[in-house]
Amino acid sequence: MKIAIYEAGSGPRIGVVLGDRIVDAGLAGPLMDHLEAWAEIAPRLAGLDPASGLPLSGVRLRAPIPRPGKIFAIGLNYADHISESGMGTPERQVWFTKAQTSVNGPFDPVQAPRVSQAVDYEAEMVAVIGRRGKHIAREDAAAHIFGYCVGNDVTERAWQHATPQWSLGKSFDTHAPFGPWITTGDEVDPHALDIRCTVNGDERQASNTRHLVFDVFDQVAHLSQAMTLEPGDVIFTGTPGGIGAAMTPRRFLKPGDVVRVEIQGLGAIENRIEAEA
Amino acid sequence: MKIAIYEAGSGPRIGVVLGDRIVDAGLAGPLMDHLEAWAEIAPRLAGLDPASGLPLSGVRLRAPIPRPGKIFAIGLNYADHISESGMGTPERQVWFTKAQTSVNGPFDPVQAPRVSQAVDYEAEMVAVIGRRGKHIAREDAAAHIFGYCVGNDVTERAWQHATPQWSLGKSFDTHAPFGPWITTGDEVDPHALDIRCTVNGDERQASNTRHLVFDVFDQVAHLSQAMTLEPGDVIFTGTPGGIGAAMTPRRFLKPGDVVRVEIQGLGAIENRIEAEA
Repeated sequence: MKIAIYEAGSGPRIGVVLGDRIVDAGLAGPLMDHLEAWAEIAPRLAGLDPASGLPLSGVRLRAPIPRPGKIFAIGLNYADHISESGMGTPERQVWFTKAQTSVNGPFDPVQAPRVSQAVDYEAEMVAVIGRRGKHIAREDAAAHIFGYCVGNDVTERAWQHATPQWSLGKSFDTHAPFGPWITTGDEVDPHALDIRCTVNGDERQASNTRHLVFDVFDQVAHLSQAMTLEPGDVIFTGTPGGIGAAMTPRRFLKPGDVVRVEIQGLGAIENRIEAEA
Repeated sequence: MKIAIYEAGSGPRIGVVLGDRIVDAGLAGPLMDHLEAWAEIAPRLAGLDPASGLPLSGVRLRAPIPRPGKIFAIGLNYADHISESGMGTPERQVWFTKAQTSVNGPFDPVQAPRVSQAVDYEAEMVAVIGRRGKHIAREDAAAHIFGYCVGNDVTERAWQHATPQWSLGKSFDTHAPFGPWITTGDEVDPHALDIRCTVNGDERQASNTRHLVFDVFDQVAHLSQAMTLEPGDVIFTGTPGGIGAAMTPRRFLKPGDVVRVEIQGLGAIENRIEAEA
């Protein structure tokens, strides 16, 4: 099932995507508040009639989780990206964070911040936690994941590397677009999906999630040794090679550029770069 | 004014601390939802009668902001702590984060996690944002800060240093106790306060917030170049020298230890270490 947050004239609604249409799920409040009880909700939604919905092309899709409790993102998690970054393969998962205020819609503008000129893309599969847990075993991880999205871990490279700690350079407003919807975990094998990023139509990144160094289940197991994972928590699962900072010469994003990230079975997001007002 | 979240038999309430008593502020919902309108609320609270309240000793104080939108924490921000860490004084502010799920009450137990034996304290002044803003000038920063608390940036040193990124090792459940209340910014000069940490009564850290390398207003100005700061966002402003990891031999916290952090004018918090169940 594909669950989206959309607006069509009024405030945001939770909807089910059926082909090229979206049908109101009849659920009030934030999606994250419904995730723990999803097993009871899903059977009713399975019977929705696409004809009762709206064309997807006529609605505005929002980030599926607009205010995650936490957003953790793993670094150096595809072999080709590790190589282009001039780093060795980490023995342990390397985690940083993106601020809640960096969340952005799947088709909304991404800011080129006033204070920088080194904005870069990172195509990533995003996992959304559905069930609360601590010390989640790797073999139980799938049961704690509600589903998967397409994300762009937009990064301000100068700020990322101005100090040894990356989180602030990863947390600029608008720099965590994801969507276009959440595909529930029962519909995909998260470790067998082509992932691709284009800038103005030119391919920059192309890989498959089977190349993750630490897979999504390892990630959930590791994070939950430290922290209780909660419904609506968001995990950016790593980017493959091809970032702008690794090109010769380096090529950063500029206003007017359009970055598209697509993942097999999960859809695509597309964000235009705009100068911060 | 001193604003606390407390429980006395029922769910959490917002209260005003008056001497050794606490008086219900008559405000529903989370404190962070009231901060933008505080200028209208404050005059009414100024007239509260301590006799109408309860003894502080009979209530349970909770974290003043139980679910902050973000928690940013600055590293290497007192000269003596930089020296004991074997680092140079940073030219730029070094920021990491603590997860929302690490928030803990001012007198609640702090976990010694199952996966580690290197839990350490860091006494810190904590600032709470009261007014939304981006690109906040240093001279306007005070107007965006609601007030100040006492905090302990509890740190799992092995996880902090297992990778180059600190945020996960700073984000264990229960590792961000702060309180005991928020002292509003009009009552204190945040850069002239004695700060002290004891473990089982033995002094480990003793300094004054005038020794901050980057002061609180610089911190707000810098963070807000990247991110919109929102009411209820929490900033841990740095720890002075004296951490357990820098002692010879290194001395980490063990179950049964009691860590007390006190800051002049802001009160004290005290947390007992307990093994994670």
